Amino acid sequence: MVKVAFGQMKPVFLDPEANYSKAEALIAEAAENDVKLIVLPELFDTGYNFKSRDEVMEVASPIPDGKTTQVLIRLARKYRIFIVAGTAERDRFGRLYNSAVIVGPSGYIGRYRKVHLFAREKEFFEAGNLGFEVFHLGFARVGVMICFDWFFPESARTLALKGAEIIAHPANLVMPYAPRAMPIRALENRVYTITADRVGEERGLRFIGRSQINSPRAETLVEGSEDGEEIGIAEIDLSLARDKRLNDYNEIFRDRRPEYYAR
Amino acid sequence: MVKVAFGQMKPVFLDPEANYSKAEALIAEAAENDVKLIVLPELFDTGYNFKSRDEVMEVASPIPDGKTTQVLIRLARKYRIFIVAGTAERDRFGRLYNSAVIVGPSGYIGRYRKVHLFAREKEFFEAGNLGFEVFHLGFARVGVMICFDWFFPESARTLALKGAEIIAHPANLVMPYAPRAMPIRALENRVYTITADRVGEERGLRFIGRSQINSPRAETLVEGSEDGEEIGIAEIDLSLARDKRLNDYNEIFRDRRPEYYAR
Repeated sequence: MVKVAFGQMKPVFLDPEANYSKAEALIAEAAENDVKLIVLPELFDTGYNFKSRDEVMEVASPIPDGKTTQVLIRLARKYRIFIVAGTAERDRFGRLYNSAVIVGPSGYIGRYRKVHLFAREKEFFEAGNLGFEVFHLGFARVGVMICFDWFFPESARTLALKGAEIIAHPANLVMPYAPRAMPIRALENRVYTITADRVGEERGLRFIGRSQINSPRAETLVEGSEDGEEIGIAEIDLSLARDKRLNDYNEIFRDRRPEYYAR
Repeated sequence: MVKVAFGQMKPVFLDPEANYSKAEALIAEAAENDVKLIVLPELFDTGYNFKSRDEVMEVASPIPDGKTTQVLIRLARKYRIFIVAGTAERDRFGRLYNSAVIVGPSGYIGRYRKVHLFAREKEFFEAGNLGFEVFHLGFARVGVMICFDWFFPESARTLALKGAEIIAHPANLVMPYAPRAMPIRALENRVYTITADRVGEERGLRFIGRSQINSPRAETLVEGSEDGEEIGIAEIDLSLARDKRLNDYNEIFRDRRPEYYAR
């Protein structure tokens, strides 16, 4: 059994330094509770509801050499914890991505770039070009997807088929559906999911909170409030996520019939 | 707008003639209410909890020449209605399939053979070998999947990508999850789903009822009881299922990134 957490927060819009402090408070609280992995929201460092590409550019940073990743590496070392956090990425050609970084006590591990962009994000960010990757953290294999990726069952499916036991899911949810859908994503792939959502309002856009940790049996082990900044912790049994048997006859990955599936 | 229905029933085990009568009562009630399409449960003609392959063989019938399909054709003609119904199929080589037939006022339309067999079904039935097909009924394009197929997101996805506006879903549900999952299947594909479940108990196995019609917005338009034999009717707007736009920026099929999806 291992403890994992979401950190639900209300980023200060366009103020990364303030958000590093908010994140540290949540990470510290998780570490005090022996949490091994904490997931922070999508774009935890910058906020979400940008007006222009220029506005994103001012607060985005390179991965792994930029400010946000370096801060996360420092926090992961200090608190001996793995962190998956959403961040605005600027690459060396000035392209912007809605990304997540994965860091641990030993430093930088990897990144994910959001594959399915939602609504006006398409005006600011490039669509992710790295696909879905699973990161081997020693205690668990963790796949990452961001917010709207949940809508496409292929996202979680791809991560699970690649061996993910936990899906870390930084989010900035505005539609009401994800808290109903994520337990199904966990069930249909027999994985744990950790959705770290944000709360609050930005330029008239309200976020729904309700971060979740879900089990391979479609149980919501812990759910965040609609408006609080808080962590949610669950103790999870990774052997359950490794076992794809549903009963004596059905092993859900062996039972797949890809020859009949449309791409 | 068009009216569609599920017929939730408690089949008499191993007694097709009795079940034809039960089905006719539900079909007649639907027709009186101007329903265009009714879905009946998985194995509506035979019941479900078989002991042996021989037991299935005795009640299974060929498609389309056997008794069950001929009865359904007669009822579809008589009541001017389309019917999707689960049935035990015996082919001319003596192989058994957990199938569904699609018939309408003009006669036989097609069949589907369950692709993902559940639990002990594997002892009696061959796995479906026809893939997922969409049937053009004139007023709508209807895809068919049976019961446990729901668990695999690829089933509904494949039907939707092939043009289904409605997914007809005959079922004999024993796990508690489908009533939570089916609205998500409808949402993620922006289709209507009609789950026709059975009720009652057979040799100690209890079925959960709770048939549903779900909308592309994840609304459950009508839900059956846990133990009643009854029809549920909803008036649906097929233009909603044809429109895959979620907002001004997202069209969920164009937004797919199959190059990153594992098969």
